[in-house]
Amino acid sequence: MNIFEIIKKDGSARTGLLQTNHGVVKTPVFMPVGTRGAVKGTLPQQLRQAGSQIVLANTFHLMLKPGVKTIEKVGGLHKFMAWDGPILTDSGGYQVFSLSTINSTDDSGTEFASPYDGMKIKLDPLGVTEIQNRLGADIIMCFDQCPAFDAKPKEQQKAVERTIKWAKICKDTHSNSRQLLFGIVQGQTDRQLRQNCAHELVKIDFAGYAIGGLSVGEGTEQMLQTVRFTAPLLPEGKPRYLMGVGTPADIIQAVEAGIDMFDCVMPTRNGRNALAFTKAGPIRLRNSAYIDDLRPIDAGCRCLCCTTYSRAAIRHFFNIGEMLGPIMLSLHNIVFYHNLMDKIRENIENGSFSGWAVQALRSPAYARSNQVNDDMENAKYRKE
Amino acid sequence: MNIFEIIKKDGSARTGLLQTNHGVVKTPVFMPVGTRGAVKGTLPQQLRQAGSQIVLANTFHLMLKPGVKTIEKVGGLHKFMAWDGPILTDSGGYQVFSLSTINSTDDSGTEFASPYDGMKIKLDPLGVTEIQNRLGADIIMCFDQCPAFDAKPKEQQKAVERTIKWAKICKDTHSNSRQLLFGIVQGQTDRQLRQNCAHELVKIDFAGYAIGGLSVGEGTEQMLQTVRFTAPLLPEGKPRYLMGVGTPADIIQAVEAGIDMFDCVMPTRNGRNALAFTKAGPIRLRNSAYIDDLRPIDAGCRCLCCTTYSRAAIRHFFNIGEMLGPIMLSLHNIVFYHNLMDKIRENIENGSFSGWAVQALRSPAYARSNQVNDDMENAKYRKE
Repeated sequence: MNIFEIIKKDGSARTGLLQTNHGVVKTPVFMPVGTRGAVKGTLPQQLRQAGSQIVLANTFHLMLKPGVKTIEKVGGLHKFMAWDGPILTDSGGYQVFSLSTINSTDDSGTEFASPYDGMKIKLDPLGVTEIQNRLGADIIMCFDQCPAFDAKPKEQQKAVERTIKWAKICKDTHSNSRQLLFGIVQGQTDRQLRQNCAHELVKIDFAGYAIGGLSVGEGTEQMLQTVRFTAPLLPEGKPRYLMGVGTPADIIQAVEAGIDMFDCVMPTRNGRNALAFTKAGPIRLRNSAYIDDLRPIDAGCRCLCCTTYSRAAIRHFFNIGEMLGPIMLSLHNIVFYHNLMDKIRENIENGSFSGWAVQALRSPAYARSNQVNDDMENAKYRKE
Repeated sequence: MNIFEIIKKDGSARTGLLQTNHGVVKTPVFMPVGTRGAVKGTLPQQLRQAGSQIVLANTFHLMLKPGVKTIEKVGGLHKFMAWDGPILTDSGGYQVFSLSTINSTDDSGTEFASPYDGMKIKLDPLGVTEIQNRLGADIIMCFDQCPAFDAKPKEQQKAVERTIKWAKICKDTHSNSRQLLFGIVQGQTDRQLRQNCAHELVKIDFAGYAIGGLSVGEGTEQMLQTVRFTAPLLPEGKPRYLMGVGTPADIIQAVEAGIDMFDCVMPTRNGRNALAFTKAGPIRLRNSAYIDDLRPIDAGCRCLCCTTYSRAAIRHFFNIGEMLGPIMLSLHNIVFYHNLMDKIRENIENGSFSGWAVQALRSPAYARSNQVNDDMENAKYRKE
């Protein structure tokens, strides 16, 4: 069965339909991050209303809390999260290496101390795939090794070898035919490593392919160059997923390179930190300029935040530590990202994508400007 | 204009319609507490859906943050809170005496240090009334002195004298004809003081009357005895509001004594602390019994929480510090309280209230049982 249909190509950018067990996803798509079984502070109904098609959850976090058994007993991840649309679970490879005190990693897997209670846990590709089979997301990811961006070349090479070896085990283990298993290309910014990894993963044959190990500190230009180099190494007819990226400008440029799927904590983490994306550029609601501002966050925006509250109220909520501040800006920023994806798809279908992209990258809404400061850069990293 | 119409009497209990500038309120009514301009974590749309008719906000908190000028500039409290239904602002009398380091109180008013920044602020009945006139709630309260429940008799008497004196000033100052000004009867559990205070306030003539200074530690029986004694001292044809009370059992018994309006932090504060009211009695969602519990919080409940999530998911949210836990249980508990008020009104209109009340007070849902433990008792106090 062909689970991915390309509808329209415009340069390397393309729109498509991705068939999952819980419905069709229009690509390019942005997936809000619900690491621990919820996009923080937002209800599934609100996400649906915001235009979310598919949400992300994380195997590493969910296996620790509430645990696979609990989710199984309740009837699977969809029921647990109360989200009846498509879900993608990341394998936890990234989290194991970024959040944990790693005790040891060898070809068989990784042993680490739980960030919750210090308990030793062994993760290996077989176990992680079985766990994902049991959790029941629509798209699951291979267990990969994601080294730090400043790891030595030898370490990078070793990580790629393991990622390939583990990918084979994941493929062999995967036993839930309602789920799509994606491979993850590693290799940092090294072309030879990326090429080798992509080549070997394509031989194994996955339902889709992710580009992992980016947006970990290598900088935007290196990231985009690697995406532009790696995307064409992946099968044209399969979905391509750039993990953990990024700013609106990153997304526009990655779509231009042929990427179909994105996830990032930027809209939600920034929202929780009082930063709102607007057509006029990002604004910080803690700023005293908004004390008396009776306008919505972004004029014309039809999100729950903008149709309910003034900037003054949102600022007040952040000022007093009221949950509605983070909740409202998370939803607003998610809608901003979904609106961006709508425009991207529209322009690809009209054959006007590359011209639109040039304009868009210059517009205050999407420009990589000085306003995109340290906080926002930090928010690119996938830790939630 | 008669703003309060009694529809049906059943013993001393009555149903009524209270006309405000933002719509009619069916009484007896429970008003969720939105101290700082929001019922914590809940959207106005969600409150409306939960059945909330009128919400409470607090003058003391709002005058400090975001300040009266900000709320005026944004277009008044309704616009600021994005709530187009009736609002009641408490005068802040209770908060001044319970939250602040009081520097001095005399007949002219109270000087205290702001709990936010220690700045000295003077509050007096004239100023508080003017502030409430400017905030624009539909029902506003006189500035009263609410002494500690263990204050000496002489102090209690002085507080009553001041409360009466200040009430006259509030009445004379009140200049917004779209707002209803309520007097507040003080006098702790002392019948002579209550009688005197009620008598003098009725002479001044207010749109409605509150019984204040209860649920501050005097105990349930003392509280109810005082309510039973005080309610009949207030004009039959005007709304009676029992401030800061209480448990479901308290409310049932106070309605029986002729009370029409209630506010309390119990549903929301308990919700934030993982306690849910159910037909089978209160349950604590942090309890490991709910780890794998796929049932809703309360079977048959049609609230957003119960129609969305399992107990297992809510427990997980509390376990990981996810906002959705407090949000969902706040909404569930508010719906529980509104459902209680629906049943109360229904039984009064059917002439079956006293019989129903006897049964209800024995039922696990509303019983004052050992399950109503310290946490819940603490939550009765109006500090939010």
